[in-house]
Amino acid sequence: MDSNPLFAKVALLGIGLIGSSMAHAMRRAGLAAHIAGFAPHAETLEKAKRIGFADSLHDTLQPAVRDADFVVLAAPVGAFGDLMRQMAPHLKPGAIVSDVGSVKAAVIRDVAPHVPEGTHFVPAHPIAGTEQSGPEAGFAELFDGRWCVLTPTPDTDAQAVETVKTFWRRCGSEVEIMDARHHDLVLAITSHVPHLIAYNIVGTAADLETVTQGEVIKYSAGGFRDFTRIAASDPTMWRDVFLNNREAVLEMLGRFSEDLTALQRAIRWDDGEALFNLFTRTRAIRRSIVEAGQDTAAPNFGRLRKKT
Amino acid sequence: MDSNPLFAKVALLGIGLIGSSMAHAMRRAGLAAHIAGFAPHAETLEKAKRIGFADSLHDTLQPAVRDADFVVLAAPVGAFGDLMRQMAPHLKPGAIVSDVGSVKAAVIRDVAPHVPEGTHFVPAHPIAGTEQSGPEAGFAELFDGRWCVLTPTPDTDAQAVETVKTFWRRCGSEVEIMDARHHDLVLAITSHVPHLIAYNIVGTAADLETVTQGEVIKYSAGGFRDFTRIAASDPTMWRDVFLNNREAVLEMLGRFSEDLTALQRAIRWDDGEALFNLFTRTRAIRRSIVEAGQDTAAPNFGRLRKKT
Repeated sequence: MDSNPLFAKVALLGIGLIGSSMAHAMRRAGLAAHIAGFAPHAETLEKAKRIGFADSLHDTLQPAVRDADFVVLAAPVGAFGDLMRQMAPHLKPGAIVSDVGSVKAAVIRDVAPHVPEGTHFVPAHPIAGTEQSGPEAGFAELFDGRWCVLTPTPDTDAQAVETVKTFWRRCGSEVEIMDARHHDLVLAITSHVPHLIAYNIVGTAADLETVTQGEVIKYSAGGFRDFTRIAASDPTMWRDVFLNNREAVLEMLGRFSEDLTALQRAIRWDDGEALFNLFTRTRAIRRSIVEAGQDTAAPNFGRLRKKT
Repeated sequence: MDSNPLFAKVALLGIGLIGSSMAHAMRRAGLAAHIAGFAPHAETLEKAKRIGFADSLHDTLQPAVRDADFVVLAAPVGAFGDLMRQMAPHLKPGAIVSDVGSVKAAVIRDVAPHVPEGTHFVPAHPIAGTEQSGPEAGFAELFDGRWCVLTPTPDTDAQAVETVKTFWRRCGSEVEIMDARHHDLVLAITSHVPHLIAYNIVGTAADLETVTQGEVIKYSAGGFRDFTRIAASDPTMWRDVFLNNREAVLEMLGRFSEDLTALQRAIRWDDGEALFNLFTRTRAIRRSIVEAGQDTAAPNFGRLRKKT
């Protein structure tokens, strides 16, 4: 692995789970001579300072992005347009701006118009995360073996795309290039709708009159607890994802609901064969995911077997 | 912990994940002088023999249940009625029959009429499992810290209930007594509907035309992979669960779909506040589950951080 710094200065605009993990991964790979972190809240900056993953920390944009070769939007996607507009006058000529947003067409729509002449915008999405948030949640290995999808437009500078590719590879990721609209469809089914139905069932369970919340918690090991993990993800981030990937999410949700109605009907009309056939098909996909190195083969995700 | 054998002979009718885990847990706690295993298929018996968790293995019921003090139905619930009817003439007087079925009202409906005079039936459900099946999947710690729910009827022998309670405690579980119909409602929301929607979204994702199955697998770390775990559970077992807990599942599914439609509408009409409020509420439930010792606090269920 190359150990020359790829950039003299990197600015992370947002230092939560993803931003802080990037800082740790950059440190591990020696990617930046100087890492600057920006966050609007004093509390976040305090935590980041204590952990020490950044060389400088800022509550205003100008000093964070000044002289930076690489600037990464790592806040909830609803904030990207404003951030780009505000930092534009302070960008160094030739700087590359990128992002980590979970939606790409809306990000391009919001960010691209404000990118100054002589700088480059390379939209990116590292597909990695945990249910935890904030600067303490980050760790260097988060991106190892995960995919990072870049969604350049036909206008995007090819050299800038290559640099961002190199950056993510040295953070441990594999890199794929994709059209932004296609990315949004893929992520709607692999990430956004799964989060939505996880949030939804946790809400449904909490609101029942016939089953108490205490019972739901006590007996959650039957399957429910799995859903609570992703339903504990950052609320602001996810609100912005759904509002900015509306069409693709509604399309995939429509398919999901249609299929669920068919299952409901199979249960009502005692169609065991339909149920059995689906339940058999779905096993193969799990196997492929484990074989592709995208999940652990250990039962129960390798949760500790003993009582915690 | 008491180390006297609780039973001279225990018969496990079914030696898959749950049956074999019970054998391992019984060995660990010294609960039975003799463990007999029954399975209809030679292949299953071969595997069990190789692992060695049973003292005797049988492909017919009579020798398995002969002289047994404790007989456990550990097959898919759709088979319980037939098993009970067939073994009834061979049960020892005073024998206790129990089960591990995930539904309880239907099991009582199917099993109770065939329980011979002078023997006892204590319906039970250990709420524990993994996505794996078969005799190789079992391990002694499966029940540690998990709840086992007993659903005796007013007619059930109190002493037999106490004995089954002791059995599960010595297998590592905590024990709760509940009405069968209430159990079925609780499990519908904490286990059955979660499994159904997991199976459903994996099916939906596999059937898309706009996103390939390869893409779904490749980018599954965004959330989808979590659902594939429980969608890899045993198809026969789960078919039987849905067909035998129809009313409760349809009721809970109705609530889930109603809530999901409201979320869909919030996305369509740009109601970020409704989304944010739900996403904030659901975090607290995750925290309670971790505090109750029913899941790990480690991010990503403690999945290995490194590429597998």
